[in-house]
Amino acid sequence: RDCKKKIDLHGLLFCYLILEPVQEEHESCDSHTSASGCTLFLGYTSNLISSGVRESIRYLAQHRMVDVIVTTAGGIEEDFIKCLAPTYLGEFSLKGKELRQQGINRIGNLLVPNDNYCKFEDWLMPILDQMVLEQKTEGTHWTPSKMIHRLGKEINNPDSVYYWAYKNDIPVFSPALTDGSLGDMIYFHSYKNPGLVLDIVEDIRRLNSKAVFAKSTGMIILGGGLVKHHIANANLMRNGADFAVFVNTGQEFDGSDSGARPDEAISWGKIRMDASPVKVYADASIVFPLLVAETFAHNANRLIKEKKSD
Amino acid sequence: RDCKKKIDLHGLLFCYLILEPVQEEHESCDSHTSASGCTLFLGYTSNLISSGVRESIRYLAQHRMVDVIVTTAGGIEEDFIKCLAPTYLGEFSLKGKELRQQGINRIGNLLVPNDNYCKFEDWLMPILDQMVLEQKTEGTHWTPSKMIHRLGKEINNPDSVYYWAYKNDIPVFSPALTDGSLGDMIYFHSYKNPGLVLDIVEDIRRLNSKAVFAKSTGMIILGGGLVKHHIANANLMRNGADFAVFVNTGQEFDGSDSGARPDEAISWGKIRMDASPVKVYADASIVFPLLVAETFAHNANRLIKEKKSD
Amino acid sequence: RDCKKKIDLHGLLFCYLILEPVQEEHESCDSHTSASGCTLFLGYTSNLISSGVRESIRYLAQHRMVDVIVTTAGGIEEDFIKCLAPTYLGEFSLKGKELRQQGINRIGNLLVPNDNYCKFEDWLMPILDQMVLEQKTEGTHWTPSKMIHRLGKEINNPDSVYYWAYKNDIPVFSPALTDGSLGDMIYFHSYKNPGLVLDIVEDIRRLNSKAVFAKSTGMIILGGGLVKHHIANANLMRNGADFAVFVNTGQEFDGSDSGARPDEAISWGKIRMDASPVKVYADASIVFPLLVAETFAHNANRLIKEKKSD
Amino acid sequence: RDCKKKIDLHGLLFCYLILEPVQEEHESCDSHTSASGCTLFLGYTSNLISSGVRESIRYLAQHRMVDVIVTTAGGIEEDFIKCLAPTYLGEFSLKGKELRQQGINRIGNLLVPNDNYCKFEDWLMPILDQMVLEQKTEGTHWTPSKMIHRLGKEINNPDSVYYWAYKNDIPVFSPALTDGSLGDMIYFHSYKNPGLVLDIVEDIRRLNSKAVFAKSTGMIILGGGLVKHHIANANLMRNGADFAVFVNTGQEFDGSDSGARPDEAISWGKIRMDASPVKVYADASIVFPLLVAETFAHNANRLIKEKKSD
Repeated sequence: RDCKKKIDLHGLLFCYLILEPVQEEHESCDSHTSASGCTLFLGYTSNLISSGVRESIRYLAQHRMVDVIVTTAGGIEEDFIKCLAPTYLGEFSLKGKELRQQGINRIGNLLVPNDNYCKFEDWLMPILDQMVLEQKTEGTHWTPSKMIHRLGKEINNPDSVYYWAYKNDIPVFSPALTDGSLGDMIYFHSYKNPGLVLDIVEDIRRLNSKAVFAKSTGMIILGGGLVKHHIANANLMRNGADFAVFVNTGQEFDGSDSGARPDEAISWGKIRMDASPVKVYADASIVFPLLVAETFAHNANRLIKEKKSD
Repeated sequence: RDCKKKIDLHGLLFCYLILEPVQEEHESCDSHTSASGCTLFLGYTSNLISSGVRESIRYLAQHRMVDVIVTTAGGIEEDFIKCLAPTYLGEFSLKGKELRQQGINRIGNLLVPNDNYCKFEDWLMPILDQMVLEQKTEGTHWTPSKMIHRLGKEINNPDSVYYWAYKNDIPVFSPALTDGSLGDMIYFHSYKNPGLVLDIVEDIRRLNSKAVFAKSTGMIILGGGLVKHHIANANLMRNGADFAVFVNTGQEFDGSDSGARPDEAISWGKIRMDASPVKVYADASIVFPLLVAETFAHNANRLIKEKKSD
Repeated sequence: RDCKKKIDLHGLLFCYLILEPVQEEHESCDSHTSASGCTLFLGYTSNLISSGVRESIRYLAQHRMVDVIVTTAGGIEEDFIKCLAPTYLGEFSLKGKELRQQGINRIGNLLVPNDNYCKFEDWLMPILDQMVLEQKTEGTHWTPSKMIHRLGKEINNPDSVYYWAYKNDIPVFSPALTDGSLGDMIYFHSYKNPGLVLDIVEDIRRLNSKAVFAKSTGMIILGGGLVKHHIANANLMRNGADFAVFVNTGQEFDGSDSGARPDEAISWGKIRMDASPVKVYADASIVFPLLVAETFAHNANRLIKEKKSD
Repeated sequence: RDCKKKIDLHGLLFCYLILEPVQEEHESCDSHTSASGCTLFLGYTSNLISSGVRESIRYLAQHRMVDVIVTTAGGIEEDFIKCLAPTYLGEFSLKGKELRQQGINRIGNLLVPNDNYCKFEDWLMPILDQMVLEQKTEGTHWTPSKMIHRLGKEINNPDSVYYWAYKNDIPVFSPALTDGSLGDMIYFHSYKNPGLVLDIVEDIRRLNSKAVFAKSTGMIILGGGLVKHHIANANLMRNGADFAVFVNTGQEFDGSDSGARPDEAISWGKIRMDASPVKVYADASIVFPLLVAETFAHNANRLIKEKKSD
């Protein structure tokens, strides 16, 4: 269809759906350009932070090899909890009832004792108090990405993905940040010290701008659901990503976005028509460390040097 | 472990992880009890609204057969868009590039023309203006669930799931409501008429309270990702749901919550140890209409009568 | 390519790969034409006979609604064993070690006691003796399909799929008939009474001829592996089936024939280029009874009448 | 149950189902013991020979690192065809109709021109003539494993898996050897030069004996269907394999043997109760080269030396 809808966006005119920025003008703030000129979006589901893939992700954040991160609430909190107490290797077949009676929570073949979440609570509650205070006294407008940035600063631990995201100013988006233990804590805390607001509108502006004002973009998405759709939808705002790698075990027959082939994203303008996207049908915990080793790590010296010379 | 963490929640003491409400006290507001005494949580992913399962879901909302709904942004907006223009049946194998050139978006084997989203924009923008106005003038504190309630009122169409959710006061939660066309609109709108805040903290309080203060709960969850975890996590707040039916095509081997068997949820206290949960390994578009037909619809007369006599 | 290879087949010239029967001439023997003029090939894996789908299959054989059957060894023997002793409903999660110690074998969520196989042995051994005798004295040239025909006669039980296949002269092919308990028995028996020969060459002639000399063909294939490939390969001999329905849970990404979409079979000439084949991505135990109910059973009166008037 | 069935097997008494060889006595023929004392059974589906996994399998056969091979008809013929003409890399999404019109057959994302099968025909037909002659003049009793052995000799090409199986006297079983292009050729050939018999009874004796008389056994099975069941069933004859690694993408929910976890095989006595079997849920084309590299190839020097000193 013809571009009938023209939207004024920060001085730019946009035609929604066939988005054509009539006049491009980079936002000055919040836009460290990646060395390659390509803004890399990395998305992953919570279980990958619970698994050993966390260390590959931490490596990428530490060396500023990705520019934007999107994950779920569990993908945030399990990283911090691992800084406070270890996750254990178990079995997929351990009985839920017996585990429950012993106070052990199962994530696939991994085990997290209840006590880890208590340590998380002890760590988090004073930070929530402080956030409420800043909101009330300084007018801080909290969003999920700002909260994650603050938590990355507070954990102050080089094992943490989000410590490095904080250090390297990599924004981390997680619009449903209340969907997990963080939400449990926020819920409890809201009865003791009410008033905290987490706004998702400012974050969608910030995420979309990362896509809109990038010279080119790439998406690396491990798993499905929210993280896959959220990165792809942001890239729709620029008529599609230039590069895309999906790693997941979803299948297309049920019509879910999780299992959709990259070609479905091309129909939406989430991936460019001339791109060569790839879907790897495999467990990311097998594939992603290999991918990182043979790409980012293999070229680490060059990539890190280019970053430094920005 | 022993209950070491005691949390004061609205006058109740809670021990986190082995949650034991020391003194139960029902919230007066926002708690129409379901006829059966069992609060039913229904969750589903976006593609099910795009598919013909929408009609089964609408039936349940219309007759107040479920008490709480959780879905994704697409699960909200596609319902409204279908009130404005039809979705078409296509093929999984249609080429993305050709569809893009024709302005047609593919969702599995379904097709949605760009023009549908333009109609959605025309419908939504004045509502967003009004929401900003109410926020500024009346101090309305918007949350995703409140916004969905308003949209259900505005659509005023008995084909809509959320029209009936509005009419029957069924809360609908979607913490990442910005992750879709609604987010696109909110993003564009924020440049024309900035200031809208969508807070996810109030919604997590509201959702969790639905679980905490229920006499008993059941979960029917179609698909995985956010909707599955969000309902299960809310039921953790009450030491687990009493009944659970999962319908999805996920597998457990990748360690994701989507593919996890109900027994994993028992380890967390998201499902009670003495429950008999069921996972159906199938495309919900095959199974759910059969399930509704043989359960809710089969007993409709009795169920509807009981609701009326509440 | 041009047809360079011309093969003389029973008086007909065939060009392999672009098979064009130069002169069509029906074999007189072994070719009851189906009422519709369409020869229906039904294939299914062993587990479907273990499950309740057996009754749907038996219904089709009883009423001569299919013309050729292909299954695996387990798909044969479990039908007979069910005539001798019942299969029980269990759970997928029952521990293998405990079951083994109790002499119970698990097939998915079904349980078969060792004793059932002893009863099968008691029934089968005298028949094997008789088969060896007939081979030696009458020169019977045994093939898997002939053996299944004999077993169907011997079981003499209207609950059996192969009793009805025998009665209605529906050939049943199972080239790897030794791959199961039947093979175990044949193996043991061969030490007591050696000499039995089961030839697979005559059966491939017989199966392929069913496809080659059919006016038109349809394939209904439940599951993957041998049964899927064997029926499709036979239909390659006639440049493809006219109709095809696949029901299975396989995925194409691993490159297996089991998960291949029907479109792959079109490239081989196993399905005609102008056909409209269907793949249902679902557990056949959910879908097949529905399919039979809404097609064969729905039109049973007409179908049975037409068969009688052959 | 008690052992009620006692079977005399080559001088040994066996109790079927709780198989206890009362007196163990090794067959002298056909039993090169593997260096480790553990007889290794390797099974794989046809597509893995079509893919680059063929080279890993060839490596194992070349260095006598496996003792018994089980595969499907395609797993045999595609190895020989690759010696005659190359297989090409394509795409999963290439249209079947267009490929058919160009005489190209698709196997997943691989392409095999019709002409390859013509070359195979030219190579195979004289061998079939010779086999019929030997049967008639020398009384050769052909079985699938004997035919594969002969073909491995005839191809005389070190790229071939079965050339090395021939050289190293590794038996290769494929009971449904007629289910593929080999079957097509045998079918055509039977009209020109009838009489070939391929007996599957002698092969089941030979396969089961490899398991029964082994000191210990291991199973490496890539994919499902016939190859998985056939190796596991042979190991039932010895109360279970000592070691087992399954690599496949099947799921257990449909009750198929393909997707069954190793624990199901323990209930049958196909894997020993004290074994520690592993199932890898992944495409073997990703995983198997890594497995071979880190196990067999890593220890190649030692393994090859031990074999030589047999």
